[in-house]
Amino acid sequence: MHAVSDCIFCKIVAGEIPCFKLYENEESLAFMDINPVSSGHCLIVPKQHGADLLAISDAGLCAAACTAKKVARAVKATLDTRGLNLLQCNGEAAGQSVLHFHIHIIPREMDDGMAMNWDIVPGDMAAIGVLAEQIRNNIED
Amino acid sequence: MHAVSDCIFCKIVAGEIPCFKLYENEESLAFMDINPVSSGHCLIVPKQHGADLLAISDAGLCAAACTAKKVARAVKATLDTRGLNLLQCNGEAAGQSVLHFHIHIIPREMDDGMAMNWDIVPGDMAAIGVLAEQIRNNIED
Repeated sequence: MHAVSDCIFCKIVAGEIPCFKLYENEESLAFMDINPVSSGHCLIVPKQHGADLLAISDAGLCAAACTAKKVARAVKATLDTRGLNLLQCNGEAAGQSVLHFHIHIIPREMDDGMAMNWDIVPGDMAAIGVLAEQIRNNIED
Repeated sequence: MHAVSDCIFCKIVAGEIPCFKLYENEESLAFMDINPVSSGHCLIVPKQHGADLLAISDAGLCAAACTAKKVARAVKATLDTRGLNLLQCNGEAAGQSVLHFHIHIIPREMDDGMAMNWDIVPGDMAAIGVLAEQIRNNIED
């Protein structure tokens, strides 16, 4: 593993900083978020350092995603939670505070007041169509 | 594919309902969200129907996640967005409106007023430790 010396999640992966570990396999680690937004809030990281979604390997991404699924099932079984979000943040503008890719598992209850939902408002179809064409042209195979 | 007859995303996958398609491979499809919360908001679905995270296969999950990464790179290249969230909702309490697993790609800008971020508030470490033990015991290998 290429641990990054000033990365708190690399230190957790290396066992240099303690965590409430939930699950670990060769490529990923799941542990409790100690600043939870809801009870049962936890995090999954690929062990290999990468700052964000665009920096990690597909293998690291798949390992983290499959571990998120496994842990989400256990969170649901434990808390009998009504809902659950997976959230992944890239960049300060998106709320990323640790620059090591991580997936949040956030248990949810009906009307819990968390502001992660939104009202559905139809968009401008012509503008969406133009943007779709631009994005499509930027996809690298 | 096992299309579910009343599932709007299965109909989109089958081409029975049009979409602004961004990318498609054997197992997954990416298209614009026509009710965008921000410019460039798009969705990735595994083609195989499954209601939520716990209902889809690991293969479908990995395909959707890798497609999300590919499309996120193109969204960033197109919009030069400062941040980007991946959000996945399970259950009405978590804001899920279509019961076919999907990943939202949500472009973000600094101080865009979107309420998906939160202040970091330290949790009760003893309670988190107890919960971690319970969740750990519910993880199925």
